[in-house]
Amino acid sequence: MTDQPMRIAVVGAAGRMGRTLVRLVGEHPGLALHAGLEREGSDALGRDAGDLAGAGRLGVAVTSDIAAALDGADGVVDFSTPATSRALAVATAERGLVHVIGTTGLVPDDEAAIRAAGTRARIVKSGNMSLGVNLLALLVEQAARALGPEAFDVEILEMHHKHKVDAPSGTALLLGRAAAAGRGVDLEAASVRVRDGLTGARSSGAIGFASLRGGSVVGDHQVILAGEGERIELNHRAEDRTVFARGALAAALWARGQSPGLYSMRDVLGL
Amino acid sequence: MTDQPMRIAVVGAAGRMGRTLVRLVGEHPGLALHAGLEREGSDALGRDAGDLAGAGRLGVAVTSDIAAALDGADGVVDFSTPATSRALAVATAERGLVHVIGTTGLVPDDEAAIRAAGTRARIVKSGNMSLGVNLLALLVEQAARALGPEAFDVEILEMHHKHKVDAPSGTALLLGRAAAAGRGVDLEAASVRVRDGLTGARSSGAIGFASLRGGSVVGDHQVILAGEGERIELNHRAEDRTVFARGALAAALWARGQSPGLYSMRDVLGL
Amino acid sequence: MTDQPMRIAVVGAAGRMGRTLVRLVGEHPGLALHAGLEREGSDALGRDAGDLAGAGRLGVAVTSDIAAALDGADGVVDFSTPATSRALAVATAERGLVHVIGTTGLVPDDEAAIRAAGTRARIVKSGNMSLGVNLLALLVEQAARALGPEAFDVEILEMHHKHKVDAPSGTALLLGRAAAAGRGVDLEAASVRVRDGLTGARSSGAIGFASLRGGSVVGDHQVILAGEGERIELNHRAEDRTVFARGALAAALWARGQSPGLYSMRDVLGL
Amino acid sequence: MTDQPMRIAVVGAAGRMGRTLVRLVGEHPGLALHAGLEREGSDALGRDAGDLAGAGRLGVAVTSDIAAALDGADGVVDFSTPATSRALAVATAERGLVHVIGTTGLVPDDEAAIRAAGTRARIVKSGNMSLGVNLLALLVEQAARALGPEAFDVEILEMHHKHKVDAPSGTALLLGRAAAAGRGVDLEAASVRVRDGLTGARSSGAIGFASLRGGSVVGDHQVILAGEGERIELNHRAEDRTVFARGALAAALWARGQSPGLYSMRDVLGL
Repeated sequence: MTDQPMRIAVVGAAGRMGRTLVRLVGEHPGLALHAGLEREGSDALGRDAGDLAGAGRLGVAVTSDIAAALDGADGVVDFSTPATSRALAVATAERGLVHVIGTTGLVPDDEAAIRAAGTRARIVKSGNMSLGVNLLALLVEQAARALGPEAFDVEILEMHHKHKVDAPSGTALLLGRAAAAGRGVDLEAASVRVRDGLTGARSSGAIGFASLRGGSVVGDHQVILAGEGERIELNHRAEDRTVFARGALAAALWARGQSPGLYSMRDVLGL
Repeated sequence: MTDQPMRIAVVGAAGRMGRTLVRLVGEHPGLALHAGLEREGSDALGRDAGDLAGAGRLGVAVTSDIAAALDGADGVVDFSTPATSRALAVATAERGLVHVIGTTGLVPDDEAAIRAAGTRARIVKSGNMSLGVNLLALLVEQAARALGPEAFDVEILEMHHKHKVDAPSGTALLLGRAAAAGRGVDLEAASVRVRDGLTGARSSGAIGFASLRGGSVVGDHQVILAGEGERIELNHRAEDRTVFARGALAAALWARGQSPGLYSMRDVLGL
Repeated sequence: MTDQPMRIAVVGAAGRMGRTLVRLVGEHPGLALHAGLEREGSDALGRDAGDLAGAGRLGVAVTSDIAAALDGADGVVDFSTPATSRALAVATAERGLVHVIGTTGLVPDDEAAIRAAGTRARIVKSGNMSLGVNLLALLVEQAARALGPEAFDVEILEMHHKHKVDAPSGTALLLGRAAAAGRGVDLEAASVRVRDGLTGARSSGAIGFASLRGGSVVGDHQVILAGEGERIELNHRAEDRTVFARGALAAALWARGQSPGLYSMRDVLGL
Repeated sequence: MTDQPMRIAVVGAAGRMGRTLVRLVGEHPGLALHAGLEREGSDALGRDAGDLAGAGRLGVAVTSDIAAALDGADGVVDFSTPATSRALAVATAERGLVHVIGTTGLVPDDEAAIRAAGTRARIVKSGNMSLGVNLLALLVEQAARALGPEAFDVEILEMHHKHKVDAPSGTALLLGRAAAAGRGVDLEAASVRVRDGLTGARSSGAIGFASLRGGSVVGDHQVILAGEGERIELNHRAEDRTVFARGALAAALWARGQSPGLYSMRDVLGL
């Protein structure tokens, strides 16, 4: 560990997530903005990344030159596309950098390429970068294992804003997979996703889902384990959309002190 | 009002609700058990109503003789059948008694007969005798009126024990009707009872329902009004099954001081 | 009512609340920004109010000239100082405008001056402009009246971010006053603000307070009415700090259709 | 493991906890009531344990003869006094039985005697036999470790019925100790137990407590970890007072398959 702030290159620096990352890097005493990357042809090239983020001038011009962006950096935070993340993984491996990957839509080929980079880079990869959600999933898995299906029923509730077009949320399904893993069952087989009319009594071992929609709710999730005479409720409330950026930066700081390898948010949580 | 305890005749004194009523009457300083009624042929006839209720001997033998049970009583608490409630309404009207009716399944003919009795009896009639649920319905109606559909989305969530065979609960629908009344819309037309898969964005004015099942939950209900940047949540939690009996006895005590008439739990609540 | 957007003058247009108001006015189809006021000497004078608010250019230069700002306006939204609000009230009365006043710290003299303006202006004045909080206070008052102290205990819980320096919150006290009003008691006499160690059993009629602090919570409030076997919970969750601005604009739109007078948020809610 | 029901001797069979245990043993297909113990001189001696429990006749007369009660038993469930538990530990060790000890007030001498018995008996000992509370404590410890004090604030809230005379509850303190253990700090030093008036901003690393009282609430506990933009809430709700008896019987069934030793509820939970 060093007293120097960790120098971060932000990928997609002009996008919504990128600007949030730039702003948070600017506010964090242990981090410094080293570079802001954008794709060739972006209007943002050459502009100050801090200005774009509404964070005040940071003296870092947005660039599309990967090598220039990564040379001298300590870490790269990357919510981008599978192709970009693969290309960056080669570059971070060459330089032995920290590489935090929140990119979604990765296929097995992408995963393999990233794993290969993990022999020299320090990679943290997750489909959901929120510290809280990752912790909750871990707690749910343990609770579902300890409180078995003969005595405790698992129900998963989520609420999101009125604009959300699908149900249940991806995070609710992630929590469902955690509960199913704790029980050693297949989520698809155990899921009850609709209750309306004459449903009959609840099946032992079922994992129920329910979705609420309304207003501007960023994302609330609740996993209930209900037994005879007692209930456990494990909840996560996201108050704003910065939690993914915050988790990615926490991952970057954590990875700085690790050996090269491919890590998950569970490793970051130390559990 | 008088300092004398109110003398209560409990209908169906050997049933589950009747025994709860007998026990609560025995515990309440302002109430005294006057009679316990059961149908002809019941095994309980002649036995002590207090013993049956696990409340200790109360010196009141269960009877099937309506006249004997009602003479000298101040009030009748009646969770029975439509036919019995009609017959009792005639008898309570003759005597000018308080008659609390929690019987369900009443058809318009029954309602008319009961209304007729209300010219001389003091009748409180409700499909749900819980003070809390009735109050919540009233608050929901007002909230749904004040916070209109262009800005606030109404969602109704309920959780019940794993043995419940239908969804949503009757109380959830009662709360939905209250919200619809506040909005001046038809509940059937506004209801969204299932969300699974690609649902599209939420419709303005929809009233959403969701049901959770598990463990031994007696009955939790939540009505959410979600707007931009803020949420109102109006919840009722039933901790045990005595709340209906307690509400009925509160209604009896309230009705004692009223003029003859047909009242609802909203009147009891004074709102 | 008219099909023309309501023309709004925002007081303190360069401040935090003012910029939020400017942005929301710009987004609302029924509202148009007419003027942005700032004090003499402000750096913001002459700058575009939309630019200052991060809402894009709106073609409205910030001014310190009250007459210029109000001529041609339909309404004024005013979170400022007592002296400014008094001065503005004279000006809005002369013009028969809507005047929404969210200014705090008003003394009786200020109140009297504003009341006088209410003979010609349409004034909505409140110490808390959130629709949800005002509605909740009204519901709490009714619930506390309907469910009396002999049977239901009132508890008030709030949670705010870790930077808040006092407890309980002003809104918790506002809700406490609503409960006390419903019960016809004095809040000071009924309040229990600390529980630690051997407290003894709860007094009937007490109104309990508890405060949680942590993270970035904008403001959650819960009023519980707990009886034998059932609980009512009446909650408000503020997700962001725009709810006061949103409520003020809702008040302005409502007041446009009213006769001159001094109104509260309860009038806006129509309850 | 065997297909035979486990034969249980219940200590204090005529007391409140004992009667609950007798009733639950009678209902559980994997358990059979073998004996009901009471102290010399108890009125209950010779009466049927099932009758006393309101569970119907079970053909087991309450006895004060420990040897008679334990011979032929598989396990002993013991919520009694330190002296009785010590004496019973000797007897269960001699017979190699399961011995579940929920007795409170044990001093180090008692603990040592019980530990000695653990070389031959299968002992599960805990000050709180609820499966849910023990699980929650474990989850809280992990969450407090993973989400450190620089980023997440721990708050502990509990609600109990109006008759409770102290605050915070023993379980809230147990959860506080779990959080403190996860953080590696001393609970006493970190605790903030009162917030009223000008408190100043929250200290990093503090563990806050708040207590609500009202109605008939059996016991609700909530541990909140609040960070920037997200919150984790870990809740336990006890719906009735049987959860301690249920947990003790779950412990007995679990211990039947174990080697002799001294176990905790964490072992029963398998975590």
